[in-house]
Amino acid sequence: MKKQLYLFAFLFCYLGANAQIQHLEPSFWWEGMKYHQVQIMVHGKNIANLSVSAKNIEILEVTKTQNPNYLFVTLETQNLTSGTYPITFKKNKKVVQHYNFEIKTRRINSSQRKGFDSSDAIYLIMPDRFSNGNPDNDSMKSVTEKADRKNKDGRHGGDIQGIINHVDYLKDLGITTLWSTPLLEDNEPVTTYHTYAQSDLYKIDPRFGTNKEYLSLSKELHKKDMKLVMDYVTNHWSSKHWMIQDLPTPDWIHVWADGDKGFKRSNYRMTSQFDTNASNIDSKECMDGWFDSSMPDINQQNPLVLNYLIQNAIWWIEYANLDGLRVDTYSYNDKDGIAKWTKTIMGEYPNFNIVGEVWMQSQAQISFWQKDSKIGKIKNYNSYLPSVMDFTLHNAITQMFNEDNQDWNTGMMRAYENFANDFLYPNIDNILVFAANHDTNRINEILDGDVNKYKLAITLISTIRGIPQLYYGDEIGMRGDKNKHGDGDIRRDFPGGWKNDSQNAFLQNGRTPKQNEYHNFTKKLLQWRKNTPVIHTGKTKHFLPINNVYTYFRYDDTKKVMVVINNSNQTQTVNCNRFKEILSGYSSGVDFISNQKINLETSFSIKAKTSYVIEL
Amino acid sequence: MKKQLYLFAFLFCYLGANAQIQHLEPSFWWEGMKYHQVQIMVHGKNIANLSVSAKNIEILEVTKTQNPNYLFVTLETQNLTSGTYPITFKKNKKVVQHYNFEIKTRRINSSQRKGFDSSDAIYLIMPDRFSNGNPDNDSMKSVTEKADRKNKDGRHGGDIQGIINHVDYLKDLGITTLWSTPLLEDNEPVTTYHTYAQSDLYKIDPRFGTNKEYLSLSKELHKKDMKLVMDYVTNHWSSKHWMIQDLPTPDWIHVWADGDKGFKRSNYRMTSQFDTNASNIDSKECMDGWFDSSMPDINQQNPLVLNYLIQNAIWWIEYANLDGLRVDTYSYNDKDGIAKWTKTIMGEYPNFNIVGEVWMQSQAQISFWQKDSKIGKIKNYNSYLPSVMDFTLHNAITQMFNEDNQDWNTGMMRAYENFANDFLYPNIDNILVFAANHDTNRINEILDGDVNKYKLAITLISTIRGIPQLYYGDEIGMRGDKNKHGDGDIRRDFPGGWKNDSQNAFLQNGRTPKQNEYHNFTKKLLQWRKNTPVIHTGKTKHFLPINNVYTYFRYDDTKKVMVVINNSNQTQTVNCNRFKEILSGYSSGVDFISNQKINLETSFSIKAKTSYVIEL
Repeated sequence: MKKQLYLFAFLFCYLGANAQIQHLEPSFWWEGMKYHQVQIMVHGKNIANLSVSAKNIEILEVTKTQNPNYLFVTLETQNLTSGTYPITFKKNKKVVQHYNFEIKTRRINSSQRKGFDSSDAIYLIMPDRFSNGNPDNDSMKSVTEKADRKNKDGRHGGDIQGIINHVDYLKDLGITTLWSTPLLEDNEPVTTYHTYAQSDLYKIDPRFGTNKEYLSLSKELHKKDMKLVMDYVTNHWSSKHWMIQDLPTPDWIHVWADGDKGFKRSNYRMTSQFDTNASNIDSKECMDGWFDSSMPDINQQNPLVLNYLIQNAIWWIEYANLDGLRVDTYSYNDKDGIAKWTKTIMGEYPNFNIVGEVWMQSQAQISFWQKDSKIGKIKNYNSYLPSVMDFTLHNAITQMFNEDNQDWNTGMMRAYENFANDFLYPNIDNILVFAANHDTNRINEILDGDVNKYKLAITLISTIRGIPQLYYGDEIGMRGDKNKHGDGDIRRDFPGGWKNDSQNAFLQNGRTPKQNEYHNFTKKLLQWRKNTPVIHTGKTKHFLPINNVYTYFRYDDTKKVMVVINNSNQTQTVNCNRFKEILSGYSSGVDFISNQKINLETSFSIKAKTSYVIEL
Repeated sequence: MKKQLYLFAFLFCYLGANAQIQHLEPSFWWEGMKYHQVQIMVHGKNIANLSVSAKNIEILEVTKTQNPNYLFVTLETQNLTSGTYPITFKKNKKVVQHYNFEIKTRRINSSQRKGFDSSDAIYLIMPDRFSNGNPDNDSMKSVTEKADRKNKDGRHGGDIQGIINHVDYLKDLGITTLWSTPLLEDNEPVTTYHTYAQSDLYKIDPRFGTNKEYLSLSKELHKKDMKLVMDYVTNHWSSKHWMIQDLPTPDWIHVWADGDKGFKRSNYRMTSQFDTNASNIDSKECMDGWFDSSMPDINQQNPLVLNYLIQNAIWWIEYANLDGLRVDTYSYNDKDGIAKWTKTIMGEYPNFNIVGEVWMQSQAQISFWQKDSKIGKIKNYNSYLPSVMDFTLHNAITQMFNEDNQDWNTGMMRAYENFANDFLYPNIDNILVFAANHDTNRINEILDGDVNKYKLAITLISTIRGIPQLYYGDEIGMRGDKNKHGDGDIRRDFPGGWKNDSQNAFLQNGRTPKQNEYHNFTKKLLQWRKNTPVIHTGKTKHFLPINNVYTYFRYDDTKKVMVVINNSNQTQTVNCNRFKEILSGYSSGVDFISNQKINLETSFSIKAKTSYVIEL
């Protein structure tokens, strides 16, 4: 009965013919939240002149803005038990509209949810390009862009159901965590498949499915002990977002007087965010410039905006039972605003994880953005962001496996020198390690389809400190060249994701022998990694590469793993005497990849472009 | 009388036919030193069995080592007035030898001597290649290698007198500080001209002159308000050093059991000094490996060694009235040892300056070594080293002036991105900025003799924060290619430094018109810089380069200087509106280089490969 009442009220608000209120967000909240003073945004034609009252729930504040179509109603939800709490909107003492605000029961231990961490392996999907589980939603009335699979920048029809259909595939591959690029509505006219220009922050894009389907995906993953990471965009929204079309306040977004209809492109010069010498204008143009003309830059300095973003993120975590967020263009946000946003979410969920995209060129610069960074502290900055991405390792990976000059700075030296800077990070285990993502060239393009090189790369990523992240299709050798053919080329459809695809690479017997070589190697490593805690949290000891052979150990009090990567084009002899400070007492070990025993007493040989992962 | 007695005792000790004592170092000290417990090293055949007594000077400790040829006698010099203090060496109560240890009077304000700083411009000389002021000392009996000017790796005869002869030339050029590569005796058989393998730490190499001549150079410079920086080598000595030939202790140097007669080459992998993942062996091989086979690696962990090095450095500062030290291969020393060394010297002379050679590839890595570095603090390290070298700027300079692609990371962007990391340094004013030194390719080789490019480079170096450092001959366009022709090629003789040279580039009318163009531009800038304090200590505000034009301001409360460097190959228009946050209120300024008035109200144009230095 209660539920029906709620549904009725909900429908009334949103669908009622005479409803003045068009949006009320968030539409519900939960009991027992640390974030308990919820600021409801109410939107509708001239609703600002309505008075607001409520029963059994305290209204702390009603805030109006210059725009008569908005009201911000702050509710005190502390100590409330689950149930519905009527809110009444009146005009001249006459009831115009009722809304039954619901307080829901939380999942048990929701606040203590454990985010993804270094025990996980992440699989990054662009859902439009992964699998089309429901062809009925490829083109939908409520959104502009329709499906066109022939257009490499168009919508291809991949969706949430497509992901759900392949959770078992991911599980079998050794993946523990899914990161999908954004799934919320993106109602731009074109190139919406990447969905980074979101037009509704409370609604899954209908071409991907429904909110309910997203919940199903979450349930399906959790049922299989897997985790779900949402790609969250705080920095910008779609120009088609209803709030952008009717700005709650003039400073909701950054409007550039000298721009084109408010638009001015960001200079993307992220160093300006900590550079003591930077001019104000450069720093501002980076932070407040727009990421693209279709993506107005959100002003996180505005407390109403910040509340909205915080609540929306918490809402999704609680609603969809998330295990983590990945934050797009983290370093382009207002620095103080995004720190507050991050701190509040992590305050609500102390064991959660959030990884920010900080695409910079040095470890000191990336470290600046990680929580409790000593580099950040130089500028009195703490982002509270638990996790960052190892972009410098990515840079190294894209070069080193094609190099065998054996000089000062190339080949495996790039890896060595990258990890030499680990001390700059406050938390080196909480860092994403990856060979490619949806914005970079595909690793197997860079490696020119050489599966042996891929094996070295995936070995490195799966055994070094941090959280390995694969990009969908890496495991079957998918290629794509962004520089030559644009973004669409690195976001090709996964073969077999569409009914009637000529090939189904999700199935072993659908894959070519070469694809199976990629797949089997990846699977072997990831499945092994899953059950090898020393790789998750052990320390690292590495040795200066010799002859382009890189040797490192992951170790803790109970176990050691020795990784040897021969990146040279020759068989190499590895002298074990160099490693005696850690190998002392071990006479042999087994390379779990080849299952061969390696003699560690004096020296061993390792073939060209081969890696050993030796358990000690 | 006293003096005669001292001289007699001195000669007796060192030259007397029956003398057992061959070395006593330091041979004198000064009154009123913070470092007052002086550990005298006494060396001679079987002198360890002598007993030591002294009059009016307290012997705190006599230390013997496994080598019977050494005694370390620690004297308490606190509260002593200047004068001579007899020390007696006896065998079986029979006097074997007397030594009158002298305590000298210090120069007034010696302890408060002001080191070189950002108000200075440094000129780096390789003395063997600068000017031969005394042909009589080109080849000397007491040292092995003789002059051979035809050999590019041989000794050419340049000397201290040659430098003294050209102090006026340097003064006229706008130089305030001379840094000469080492001048102490290097008695290796070959390539001693660079003198980084020193065989006597208390004696100027006779081919350069005498200790007295070095004092004359110091006096001559100070007379002209100029400063003298000594190049100090703590990390290694010559294999021909008398102490290496008769090691005071087995661990005086790092002897490698698995090396070749104790020699093992350093792996030069300096990151191993802070890398949390580094193996012990890599870290040790970097720090304790030898810089070269002729340069045994000194063990600064040995307190006797460290005392020797500290005392020797203080001795030279006090003796030669130095204004600074440049420390060779700073980051290869024992980290704790070199920190103690640096701290003790800076404790003795709180206003002194020491710049360390830390040739690393990122600002965080270089910053690690500067005093009070927040990066160093991550690893609980403080080197106490006041000054480091901006090697990343050097890297940028060697590339950017040849680039005009106007893309994300090339051309003037390299400079911008370098200075964007200034916040990582604890003291950004105390950093050497340079386009070349004796170990790099010559800047005018890199710029292929394009004087316009040189002008941009020298403008940058002379106007940005830090301490500009020139390499001898840059100012006349000297070239040299290390990669093609070896070190000798970047260390060619300065034309006119030798009698009968076909050209004398020290004189205006001896220089070619092109050489004069280099010279005049350099001189104009440096002379101007000398009297422009805002360049020495002002803040920096820089603007993102546009079209390869880089604009920055140096400013303080009283003055602003606007520097515009057009590194593009076209005339460019610079829009002043971008600079309004600092240019507001200024309608024009004068470029002191061209003496033309620049209108700053709207925009101005600047020709290809041209710089403006506009005083506001």
